[in-house]
Amino acid sequence: MSSTFGKIFTVTTWGESHGLAVGAVVDGCPAGIPLTEADVQEFLDRRRPGQGAVTTARNEKDQVKILSGVFEGKTTGTPISFVVFNEDQHSADYSDVQKWYRPSHADLSYDLKYGFRDYRGGGRSSARETIGRVAAGAVARKFLEKVAGTEFLAWVSSIGDVDCPTFNASDISREAIEASAVRCPDKDASARMEAAILDAKKNADSIGGVVSLLVKNVPAGLGEPVFDRLDALLAQAMLSIPASKGFEIGSGFAAARMKGSEHNDDIFFDGAFHTRTNNAGGSVGGISNGENIFCRIAFKPTATIAQSQKTASRDGENGELLAKGRHDPCVAVRAPVIVESMAALVLADLYLQQKRQSL
Amino acid sequence: MSSTFGKIFTVTTWGESHGLAVGAVVDGCPAGIPLTEADVQEFLDRRRPGQGAVTTARNEKDQVKILSGVFEGKTTGTPISFVVFNEDQHSADYSDVQKWYRPSHADLSYDLKYGFRDYRGGGRSSARETIGRVAAGAVARKFLEKVAGTEFLAWVSSIGDVDCPTFNASDISREAIEASAVRCPDKDASARMEAAILDAKKNADSIGGVVSLLVKNVPAGLGEPVFDRLDALLAQAMLSIPASKGFEIGSGFAAARMKGSEHNDDIFFDGAFHTRTNNAGGSVGGISNGENIFCRIAFKPTATIAQSQKTASRDGENGELLAKGRHDPCVAVRAPVIVESMAALVLADLYLQQKRQSL
Amino acid sequence: MSSTFGKIFTVTTWGESHGLAVGAVVDGCPAGIPLTEADVQEFLDRRRPGQGAVTTARNEKDQVKILSGVFEGKTTGTPISFVVFNEDQHSADYSDVQKWYRPSHADLSYDLKYGFRDYRGGGRSSARETIGRVAAGAVARKFLEKVAGTEFLAWVSSIGDVDCPTFNASDISREAIEASAVRCPDKDASARMEAAILDAKKNADSIGGVVSLLVKNVPAGLGEPVFDRLDALLAQAMLSIPASKGFEIGSGFAAARMKGSEHNDDIFFDGAFHTRTNNAGGSVGGISNGENIFCRIAFKPTATIAQSQKTASRDGENGELLAKGRHDPCVAVRAPVIVESMAALVLADLYLQQKRQSL
Amino acid sequence: MSSTFGKIFTVTTWGESHGLAVGAVVDGCPAGIPLTEADVQEFLDRRRPGQGAVTTARNEKDQVKILSGVFEGKTTGTPISFVVFNEDQHSADYSDVQKWYRPSHADLSYDLKYGFRDYRGGGRSSARETIGRVAAGAVARKFLEKVAGTEFLAWVSSIGDVDCPTFNASDISREAIEASAVRCPDKDASARMEAAILDAKKNADSIGGVVSLLVKNVPAGLGEPVFDRLDALLAQAMLSIPASKGFEIGSGFAAARMKGSEHNDDIFFDGAFHTRTNNAGGSVGGISNGENIFCRIAFKPTATIAQSQKTASRDGENGELLAKGRHDPCVAVRAPVIVESMAALVLADLYLQQKRQSL
Repeated sequence: MSSTFGKIFTVTTWGESHGLAVGAVVDGCPAGIPLTEADVQEFLDRRRPGQGAVTTARNEKDQVKILSGVFEGKTTGTPISFVVFNEDQHSADYSDVQKWYRPSHADLSYDLKYGFRDYRGGGRSSARETIGRVAAGAVARKFLEKVAGTEFLAWVSSIGDVDCPTFNASDISREAIEASAVRCPDKDASARMEAAILDAKKNADSIGGVVSLLVKNVPAGLGEPVFDRLDALLAQAMLSIPASKGFEIGSGFAAARMKGSEHNDDIFFDGAFHTRTNNAGGSVGGISNGENIFCRIAFKPTATIAQSQKTASRDGENGELLAKGRHDPCVAVRAPVIVESMAALVLADLYLQQKRQSL
Repeated sequence: MSSTFGKIFTVTTWGESHGLAVGAVVDGCPAGIPLTEADVQEFLDRRRPGQGAVTTARNEKDQVKILSGVFEGKTTGTPISFVVFNEDQHSADYSDVQKWYRPSHADLSYDLKYGFRDYRGGGRSSARETIGRVAAGAVARKFLEKVAGTEFLAWVSSIGDVDCPTFNASDISREAIEASAVRCPDKDASARMEAAILDAKKNADSIGGVVSLLVKNVPAGLGEPVFDRLDALLAQAMLSIPASKGFEIGSGFAAARMKGSEHNDDIFFDGAFHTRTNNAGGSVGGISNGENIFCRIAFKPTATIAQSQKTASRDGENGELLAKGRHDPCVAVRAPVIVESMAALVLADLYLQQKRQSL
Repeated sequence: MSSTFGKIFTVTTWGESHGLAVGAVVDGCPAGIPLTEADVQEFLDRRRPGQGAVTTARNEKDQVKILSGVFEGKTTGTPISFVVFNEDQHSADYSDVQKWYRPSHADLSYDLKYGFRDYRGGGRSSARETIGRVAAGAVARKFLEKVAGTEFLAWVSSIGDVDCPTFNASDISREAIEASAVRCPDKDASARMEAAILDAKKNADSIGGVVSLLVKNVPAGLGEPVFDRLDALLAQAMLSIPASKGFEIGSGFAAARMKGSEHNDDIFFDGAFHTRTNNAGGSVGGISNGENIFCRIAFKPTATIAQSQKTASRDGENGELLAKGRHDPCVAVRAPVIVESMAALVLADLYLQQKRQSL
Repeated sequence: MSSTFGKIFTVTTWGESHGLAVGAVVDGCPAGIPLTEADVQEFLDRRRPGQGAVTTARNEKDQVKILSGVFEGKTTGTPISFVVFNEDQHSADYSDVQKWYRPSHADLSYDLKYGFRDYRGGGRSSARETIGRVAAGAVARKFLEKVAGTEFLAWVSSIGDVDCPTFNASDISREAIEASAVRCPDKDASARMEAAILDAKKNADSIGGVVSLLVKNVPAGLGEPVFDRLDALLAQAMLSIPASKGFEIGSGFAAARMKGSEHNDDIFFDGAFHTRTNNAGGSVGGISNGENIFCRIAFKPTATIAQSQKTASRDGENGELLAKGRHDPCVAVRAPVIVESMAALVLADLYLQQKRQSL
């Protein structure tokens, strides 16, 4: 288990889908940052289930409590502890999932690793673990907003084969994203994505998607060569989110098909240094150059589907399993706020590491 | 700077392109692993420049010395220190690169970060930094070979728009890869890739590419949820390589276009647990399941091209730069052994972390 | 803030004396270790206040809840989250301590560091922070008991000028320690220590003391040269306990007055390697040699005393403060279980790190 | 092995007494700090052997080379690599030490840990490992000198039963310390200490000693509660030095015999906050308060003595060993510069961590 992320601004998450509670501890946040439970709740509300037909029917309020680290509405520099109690646990019959491994679910690999596991839900591979990340991310965002005015915007840019048309960074708004049931800022694409998800759901199936992330007002100089390059930490952060299987920054995989003369971003100075294009996605040599960060994260389709699948049992019996349970047909829909939170955690930590350079 | 990677099996790299030497310190390798300078040299020889028309003309033998940590041909459990002295440094005229920032090169971002920089070469963003990774990776490979018979195979799977056809894992051989001037195991694709690189070179341009990695005989149970998931650490490791801009594991971005019923890998038992397909790329829930690891890494085209480019100077003057220097027209060609080395470092560290579970 | 300790078996503590709760997250404990809330409560009960005239009058039950990481009475390998809600907080008048810095208390240094502070109590420098350590230590002890039968015994070996006579390791018992109001296993010394504390209390004063620690059944080979030597990590662990100002292992400071011929511990073999004397205190070259670990920790007198003291205010006014509040007259009395817990955390982590050597 | 120390300003040491070289890599030092090989050599010369009758006869120049991280006389923010080649290795007959374990030496515990060892010298437990610490410490000192004017003074305060009288902080000078053959600033005590060492040497024995450390101009606010308290990190740093067995800060063990009314340091304000006494040794609540840091470190007598000692062989045979080799009769004499270096490494790292607080 490695449930702590970051070197200076750190988060430790804990909790399972079927335990008493989930939570997180943020350590290393400077003192004096305004923070209330409402600040955190705002982001948890964007993550929580029960948001309509395209998400899971599991309905939880996910009410957060801050147990330490805040005094008179401001952080004190001491660890900030968050707790969210689990509420809507069905006292279901778990005999099937206790016996049979769900294909492409973490059941088998957790048993291979630990030899013992809470078989009632996804355990630590459950999406509920991400509650702690979103709570911690809220602190990182408040911090970055205060010191640099940094803004995080993530949205669904594809579901199955439905793609959101490319936007200019300045045209994407929080309002357009949140107005969409699937968090796609393009109305037409949003409607087709919603149809694709409902279609999958109707067919007892699930579907994958891609989330895009834009970060504005990024301080220059963030990223610690060579192993904690900005690109590298963002990649780790995003691939640590359940169900993610790919990451690209700037032109990403498309860059591998380009010539240098097409890809290079010309530099100019107009009071500050800028680039005319942003194929780099805001990071050159692993260090932020002050341009917008842009990256994309691939999410596989939800593993649990309401169809009978071939699998094996713990005892090595080969057979079939029809898994039950309430699951999102498309994890990408609830992922944007998690993606934003992970990016905020990376940047807050790198920001504090970079402060050492300013003698 | 964050030049140390790993928690238990760690590597610290040091050195710049135009300093006296480059090197690495490996700490945490168990005692008793057979290791000679020749073992390490073998991998460095695959990385070194001067391997024909498709790589840089900079010609260095990159002869490695082991300064500590090995006694009578075996590791002692103490830090292993490697040094490779830099040889072929042109005493060139650096006045241009001292003044003008090379577009899409790390010059500007290093200045934004450190305010002071060795302007003579790429510094820590130079490919020479990866010598330390390959030397350290050699130790990780000797270790994993001994304890698990793990094998690493990376090759070039695309250059520009030329794609290598998909192989079955069992059909890819070290021999076929190394027989190709561009490290593509398919003869026909290799010839077309070589032509694409030489074409770019002739036009004073550079070109991007993708490297694919296959790891066989991976112990099950490796990966530390939630932040050090196997996928996450591989992503960090790969995005920490200079010029890489994308990472995907298993079906990766293609998974985002799939249904669960297409993507899920059925499980079966035949003495051990296996999956019939491997869309997961060997990692489920962030933990290795014993199947082959498969991933792909995107490399952007080399930033330095022999064309005049618009840019700004340190003093904020806008103008043009025609950068000189000897550079690979396509960094992907020398990247496979670096990709293999980073994967080996990730797996050696996770292997040692997992040993704690076996009470 | 650096509230996480350990590399593999880690603990993160959180919470302040006057917040809602205190707690800890243990990450990296192997799966399958039996653990109940009662196991943890047993140690918390030895730490809690309200144990008679020699401790603080603050009376709290310190009831622990396990929120995650345990399933069917056994650890699952996932993070174990503990919470203890704060109960007995006086809604006191804090205007004095808000204005005046208490001498030798952390008030001033927290303000110098953070510029903002919860002035109501000791914050993170409060003894209540150690609740998380004791809960986490309980897990470490269960683990070490299972894998190695390791036993931890700490006691008060001096209070002021009253010294406990030296015991043979085999003569010290948990029963004798816990039978004493001041946790000194020697009846006569215990009575005189109690008198010394009550005398200090009567005079509105406080008094210092020394805690001794004995660890039996220590696996050989623990300790990671050079910076994580066993001696070094024990020293860090002990000096991280509030009010501790000194640490020595084996002969410690007395060794500095000895000759090599007096100090060296002769080695003999009788099926295993042993030493005839144990001036090393169980650690040679920073690595456990299988003998008992023995060390001593100095605790200064409690800073808060019920006397008027000269000090300065936040605003730089020089004056006097008569601090109120309920405080232990001698912190050493409740420290033994904290000392044992920190030692267990060090050894559990080093045990898991050492497992990597056993190929 | 854990050969890396620090979180932001880090050092990794490598090398054994009988290998080709020893060295260190410093990572995380800010750019722009003036640094030359001569700056480092000055401290290595204070550490090196062959300084007269009271140290070992092993005579090495310990000439340092900087291989990376410095450009035009200033640090670049990239890793700084140091190497010192080993010179004066006797090609001795090692058959005795290969067979028999030297009592109180690390031979046995290294074998218990690693199962395999370079038997020719002390390996990583050799004093030569500290060369890397002193080189790294030189960088930390240059940095702290520049940002805060911090000064480090360590001296020998006792050898065997000979004590150096207590000095006022302002009366201790580098000159007086270095004028003494045993690094004791009091002339009379110095002469008696020298006699005690020569007496031990004549009797084929060794002798222990205590080193005291004073740090002036310490920035306030350094120390990261709770586990990286200033006291805790100094304790770890000092106990990681070979042969050290005790640490105390401020009044230390004497504090355990004091009343609160005697021990508390009254605070006053005269433009800045100060304390009238300094029983805390410059650290309250684990955070520097701006007063001088004062601490003491106990060193045991050198393990290797030229007398026959009872011991066991690798094969479990019980017998006697008369160890040969050239060793310091008293390790404390060469320890002051090592103590200063470790303190500088702790403070440089904490200084950079604290910078995050200054929003």
